Amino acid sequence: MATDEMKQIWKIPEPALRRLPWYLAFLKLMKEKGEVFVSSTQIAKEINVDPSQVAKDLSFVNISGKTRVGYEIETLINVLEDFLGFTVQHKAFLFGVGSLGAALLQDSGLKQYGLEIVAGFDVKKSLVGKQINGIPVFHMNDFPTKQKEQDVTIGVITVPIDKAQEVTEHIIAGGIKALWNFTPFRIRVPENIVVQNTSMYAHLAVMFNRLNSINH
Amino acid sequence: MATDEMKQIWKIPEPALRRLPWYLAFLKLMKEKGEVFVSSTQIAKEINVDPSQVAKDLSFVNISGKTRVGYEIETLINVLEDFLGFTVQHKAFLFGVGSLGAALLQDSGLKQYGLEIVAGFDVKKSLVGKQINGIPVFHMNDFPTKQKEQDVTIGVITVPIDKAQEVTEHIIAGGIKALWNFTPFRIRVPENIVVQNTSMYAHLAVMFNRLNSINH
Repeated sequence: MATDEMKQIWKIPEPALRRLPWYLAFLKLMKEKGEVFVSSTQIAKEINVDPSQVAKDLSFVNISGKTRVGYEIETLINVLEDFLGFTVQHKAFLFGVGSLGAALLQDSGLKQYGLEIVAGFDVKKSLVGKQINGIPVFHMNDFPTKQKEQDVTIGVITVPIDKAQEVTEHIIAGGIKALWNFTPFRIRVPENIVVQNTSMYAHLAVMFNRLNSINH
Repeated sequence: MATDEMKQIWKIPEPALRRLPWYLAFLKLMKEKGEVFVSSTQIAKEINVDPSQVAKDLSFVNISGKTRVGYEIETLINVLEDFLGFTVQHKAFLFGVGSLGAALLQDSGLKQYGLEIVAGFDVKKSLVGKQINGIPVFHMNDFPTKQKEQDVTIGVITVPIDKAQEVTEHIIAGGIKALWNFTPFRIRVPENIVVQNTSMYAHLAVMFNRLNSINH
């Protein structure tokens, strides 16, 4: 990767990065409708963001619009999917095959967005040796061996909260570089490790609270 | 509900609301370890938030700490769970029983956090009439009838992006008041409708991007 590209990737702030998939979804919809070009104003209107914000967000991606006609939709889709990492399969291990963990193993849709969960790990005897959606479940003790075989960089954390920190440290020591944390526990990691928290329960809490407020 | 309490609930900002489940998870862990009291400084240290922030966040909840000993853990857990709406079951319908939708139906853990999905809806003939994890799947056309029977207020949206807006409008017209949107599409709703977006794919994009940056 060229140094210029590196800097660009480094530089993009998280809020911008989180908005790009919204744009992508809208672009796919326009493509389906047979549209060929799109302006940042159109995207802005649809997503309810400022047009200058859209232009700025897209400036992090290597694409330029043409005066008057705007961006070519098909090109922009391809460039965005590439930029967002959805076109490459990233191998992941999932830790904790409980209710949520098993559910995520069932979600084949993640592959379309570049995440391929290749194995699950748990300590429960009734789970070890089984397959869920074709994905094998191994005992936690087998993680170091499997990790050496497959050289996986991403760990999906769906263990109970009292195991979250312990498992985090264990798998980082084994070579995992990025953690997708679904537990409501705030895991602590070294600086060079990537963490994304998907706090489904926090979203529920916000929804219940707001719902309660409009109902009274 | 008293007017004072209403205002308190109304007033709590979303970032504070989103932090409370982090505190709750940590408190549960401390309780399991046999601890009885906790200070906001302890919580702050563990969650990596400023102590004054913790105190301010907890001020939205009806609980006061005691000088020197701090908050009683068990009481604080109960108060937080109540405040966050996790102790009441909120009925929900799920729309779009695809890969992610079916996965969410399998996740019985949501009930522990107050969300009970009582039915799924889809248009696929192969799905309609089936049960997933004991939850029945109905045809989308049956939604108005089922809605009248059950008076559900929450809709979980897991339809394809090109159906997201259409389904949103349809179910709001039918009486749904809050939407938990898992699609990458930015749905538009009237002002009095609650939306929470859980953009799993946006989280993946951030994770891939950061991982790419540290690898180069």
